[in-house]
Amino acid sequence: MSQAKAPTAAVLVIGDEILSGRTKDSNSGFIADTLSDLGIDLEEIRVVGDRKDAIIEAVRALSEKYTYVFTTGGIGPTHDDLTADAVAEAFGVALNVDPRARAILEARYENTDFELNAARLRMARIPEGAELIENRISGAPGFKLGNVHVMAGVPAVMQAMMDAIIETLPAAAAMLSETVEAGRGEGDVAALLETLQADHPGVRIGSYPYHDGTRFTTRLVLRSRDGAALKAARAALDAALKSG
Amino acid sequence: MSQAKAPTAAVLVIGDEILSGRTKDSNSGFIADTLSDLGIDLEEIRVVGDRKDAIIEAVRALSEKYTYVFTTGGIGPTHDDLTADAVAEAFGVALNVDPRARAILEARYENTDFELNAARLRMARIPEGAELIENRISGAPGFKLGNVHVMAGVPAVMQAMMDAIIETLPAAAAMLSETVEAGRGEGDVAALLETLQADHPGVRIGSYPYHDGTRFTTRLVLRSRDGAALKAARAALDAALKSG
Repeated sequence: MSQAKAPTAAVLVIGDEILSGRTKDSNSGFIADTLSDLGIDLEEIRVVGDRKDAIIEAVRALSEKYTYVFTTGGIGPTHDDLTADAVAEAFGVALNVDPRARAILEARYENTDFELNAARLRMARIPEGAELIENRISGAPGFKLGNVHVMAGVPAVMQAMMDAIIETLPAAAAMLSETVEAGRGEGDVAALLETLQADHPGVRIGSYPYHDGTRFTTRLVLRSRDGAALKAARAALDAALKSG
Repeated sequence: MSQAKAPTAAVLVIGDEILSGRTKDSNSGFIADTLSDLGIDLEEIRVVGDRKDAIIEAVRALSEKYTYVFTTGGIGPTHDDLTADAVAEAFGVALNVDPRARAILEARYENTDFELNAARLRMARIPEGAELIENRISGAPGFKLGNVHVMAGVPAVMQAMMDAIIETLPAAAAMLSETVEAGRGEGDVAALLETLQADHPGVRIGSYPYHDGTRFTTRLVLRSRDGAALKAARAALDAALKSG
């Protein structure tokens, strides 16, 4: 590949409700879109349940392997919210009520019907050395420890936290893409795509078959950080489809 | 946990299009629903890109750890379809055109506009020792090697293959569940849930906060394979919510 190596990322979705099928995960798709716009290569998504050992194992594996890790879920006030405990343990640091987070929650619940009880105070427990991630929706912050960004599972809250995180990530060259409808089955474009990929190593070529209601056809996507390389591959693809 | 140990499973979704955000994965949610109905505990979902080394690593890790693995994607006719190659390599077996799969494709393309060219013949490559998984939609079969079930990524095709697989899985005691609306914020039920969980170890209690349009409230889900244990926990929860 001639293209520059981009930063990499993994998403870790935490929650029994996703694995049981009761809730459909939309957070990883949202984060995938966001990272794609930023030019960060999302290389892996994992979903694990509300089990501390499973979360610790995934956090360790992913944080060693990728530039950034983004987690969603498991930071609420109940007994099955184990993400902060697991991340602290994965990094070998203490987990205590953080004065900054406590102040945010106190301000948040002042003059409301909600009481800052022991359960809600769990949400102010932040691993030692972590930075807070602002939550403009419901107050209780996420946090960043090492390269791991820990966010809520409620989509609106997660999206607000992701907005706050984006400003802290170094700018990366955005990935450019071109989408082409092949207008024929995948098996009828496979040979020309193989030639095209060999001729254009700086462009990544994906082929996505689907049924358009009456027949199987194929959507082709060319991706590169190099605009000129992308343009050349697109021209070659158009010519090959026309003559093929 | 006093409940009987159920068979476990992992889903491995393969495809750059999911990681880039262009396609939203619906297959893992469908498989999660299906496994839940069957009483098989889905414990992990992974998504990796169209890279052979990443697929091999995930197949090995998941097939060692769980009773069943279900993969989707990467078994079409193009250069970026690497799942069969990776699964064969993960198990250390040969990958050749399989006469059974070839016969299916020949029958499928007879009297159609499609030609059984070299690219489509790639879809007849099946790892040595694998059983075929029927594809009633578009012909090209999936396969089962060891505990790994390899399916297509196109949702309609994947669902047809999953239907075929279900008949081969041993029956398992189905997970029973009860859903209760707490009618209050998660922080106001956390303490009673902790007590409830301690009193009912054979029942798994999940707590899912959401915004109902005007306020944050909480959905509680009790799950168990033991109907009597579930009923007792539900009664205790109802009493606690009423008095709390």
